[in-house]
Amino acid sequence: MDGPVVPLVEYEVANDEVRAVYDDIMQTRGTDWVNNFWKVLAHDPALLKRTWQSVREVMAPGALDPLVKEMIYVAVSATNGCTYCTYSHTASARAKGMSDAQLMEVMAVVGMANETNRLANGLRPPVDEAFLPA
Amino acid sequence: MDGPVVPLVEYEVANDEVRAVYDDIMQTRGTDWVNNFWKVLAHDPALLKRTWQSVREVMAPGALDPLVKEMIYVAVSATNGCTYCTYSHTASARAKGMSDAQLMEVMAVVGMANETNRLANGLRPPVDEAFLPA
Amino acid sequence: MDGPVVPLVEYEVANDEVRAVYDDIMQTRGTDWVNNFWKVLAHDPALLKRTWQSVREVMAPGALDPLVKEMIYVAVSATNGCTYCTYSHTASARAKGMSDAQLMEVMAVVGMANETNRLANGLRPPVDEAFLPA
Amino acid sequence: MDGPVVPLVEYEVANDEVRAVYDDIMQTRGTDWVNNFWKVLAHDPALLKRTWQSVREVMAPGALDPLVKEMIYVAVSATNGCTYCTYSHTASARAKGMSDAQLMEVMAVVGMANETNRLANGLRPPVDEAFLPA
Amino acid sequence: MDGPVVPLVEYEVANDEVRAVYDDIMQTRGTDWVNNFWKVLAHDPALLKRTWQSVREVMAPGALDPLVKEMIYVAVSATNGCTYCTYSHTASARAKGMSDAQLMEVMAVVGMANETNRLANGLRPPVDEAFLPA
Amino acid sequence: MDGPVVPLVEYEVANDEVRAVYDDIMQTRGTDWVNNFWKVLAHDPALLKRTWQSVREVMAPGALDPLVKEMIYVAVSATNGCTYCTYSHTASARAKGMSDAQLMEVMAVVGMANETNRLANGLRPPVDEAFLPA
Repeated sequence: MDGPVVPLVEYEVANDEVRAVYDDIMQTRGTDWVNNFWKVLAHDPALLKRTWQSVREVMAPGALDPLVKEMIYVAVSATNGCTYCTYSHTASARAKGMSDAQLMEVMAVVGMANETNRLANGLRPPVDEAFLPA
Repeated sequence: MDGPVVPLVEYEVANDEVRAVYDDIMQTRGTDWVNNFWKVLAHDPALLKRTWQSVREVMAPGALDPLVKEMIYVAVSATNGCTYCTYSHTASARAKGMSDAQLMEVMAVVGMANETNRLANGLRPPVDEAFLPA
Repeated sequence: MDGPVVPLVEYEVANDEVRAVYDDIMQTRGTDWVNNFWKVLAHDPALLKRTWQSVREVMAPGALDPLVKEMIYVAVSATNGCTYCTYSHTASARAKGMSDAQLMEVMAVVGMANETNRLANGLRPPVDEAFLPA
Repeated sequence: MDGPVVPLVEYEVANDEVRAVYDDIMQTRGTDWVNNFWKVLAHDPALLKRTWQSVREVMAPGALDPLVKEMIYVAVSATNGCTYCTYSHTASARAKGMSDAQLMEVMAVVGMANETNRLANGLRPPVDEAFLPA
Repeated sequence: MDGPVVPLVEYEVANDEVRAVYDDIMQTRGTDWVNNFWKVLAHDPALLKRTWQSVREVMAPGALDPLVKEMIYVAVSATNGCTYCTYSHTASARAKGMSDAQLMEVMAVVGMANETNRLANGLRPPVDEAFLPA
Repeated sequence: MDGPVVPLVEYEVANDEVRAVYDDIMQTRGTDWVNNFWKVLAHDPALLKRTWQSVREVMAPGALDPLVKEMIYVAVSATNGCTYCTYSHTASARAKGMSDAQLMEVMAVVGMANETNRLANGLRPPVDEAFLPA
């Protein structure tokens, strides 16, 4: 760990615009703390607010349940090799009920997809007619 | 489309080892055709067999249901920008019941995760203690 | 194919600086044509010259033989999903003697490495002491 | 280092299925220890077994020699930025005889390929007819 | 081109929520058409609206001028190998005044950064004290 | 931090070829030290020299000013998740005058571009005629 690129904006020193977002994060999640990701974004309050509102909307229950969404987040983060996101979203998925067996299956699919993506990239089979949208 | 890097191995000219895999693919899926991905892998029958057996095992029902697995496959393929895999696994997910609304939510999560992965990569917040495994 | 982002600079209309590079490419390779990659770079003659000189130096025989280097180029291009580079470097590797069996083994390693890279990214085993440089 | 996402499964507490794989890893490599990558996979014994069998098969001597395969593994791992894989496969390649001069040439090719992949992605030269498979 | 994964939602058949976004896109840009990216997003009106509002906010003049932002967009798109985004954002940057010489310099930096990113990933120099945030 | 894969080549023990590059780096930058990236490259003096000369050329004032180039470097490094490069080029950009507000806007564009790149990859809108080069 080599430290954040910009200092963490703690609640105590945050301006009202930032505090309003922090308050909404804590209330939405039912927690009394805000994780470091938001504390670096807070250097640009508009970015903080926009990103939080998008995350809140995107991760809410919809056509997919929140746990499935969180596992997709984990899958993308592992594919991209994002350290912070892997720890934070794996923790979030567990908090939503993901078992170790489910985590291992997510990883198995992620590994397999990354493998076959490259086999297709390198050998370049034409897309089958049957797979094309009507 | 600029054509496959190695010729497609069609059933008619395939050797017995390859045909056995093709037969298993068709039987497992209840179809009478094999998609082009397997036809390029067939140039290395051991690679073909190993990859198919892994896909069959990984994508089978387990702690996660097959549709969730297929949507994770789509998420990884879009993250990596694999053309063939995006079309083929989106088609597979639809065949397993994915609605357009579910596809759009998968995409929304994939987009959001790719965004926040880079915000974390660029600003490097320290991983919160609460997210670390016990 | 949607066309190049900048027009191809053909030999006939190229300036002397660009022609000198094209001449060196053809002489080094023993061919009478220049591939399209160089014709887009030619819009910035300094970039063209620098890139060609680096490629010529890097891909020359050294501690590794040129075919091994070309196969590494193919492996990286498939990992990144670069269409142009996959076709061009696979063709170059074949011109240097790569068999279909070798190509398939390159792909098998590339697939496997992309898979295990993500398993490690997602599950984050600590680096073993024995692997750390002395 | 922030610790593994799932605890390491040590030999002493592993079940028979896991021990059988660990034993095969140690026997194949002629070592008396198992590296941490396998100890996180062991939470899913089927994933552990399948992954190990694939690695053993893929990395065995074939149309390419094992050192070339290991250097391709290093090239992919550096391209993807996988920390664990970079240390472990660089160590493996050295154990198979890779010199520092060879490592530096692998890196030079990896760097060059990553550079030209993006020049092609951004400027999009059409694939030359001569590079297309017959 | 193998066609969009979901049909394009044209203005004529769009619902009011989608039309409102299309209208705002055209008004903000001073054009009488909407590009295809938005027409696929329109299958999820909330995603369409949120994404457009974010793009409009992020790409507006601020501490950086809009052309610099557009060139960064091109740089990211070339790094990721996104075909659609490379063509569309290169066109946007040109519309905002980017010259061919500037485009070629963007590409030179993108190529160099992708090269040195992998040299650092593969050889892993420790971060110098002087580079760490205070 | 697990240490560099090859030892750092310090000035005191460097050969004349390496020292000449180190001297040029320090003179060009007006500093009395060389950062670790160059000290690992120094194991291959030709790679060191070629990479430094390219960086010096590419990052010099041209059609784009050096600060814009440095911010593009930061954008690519965050997209690729390169730890060393993110810290070093963010520090360089700050030394060239980048404010925190500018850094945050770079990140906002990088995040947005990474998001929309994947929405386009997954939904695959056709490239609009208007975006194609003439």
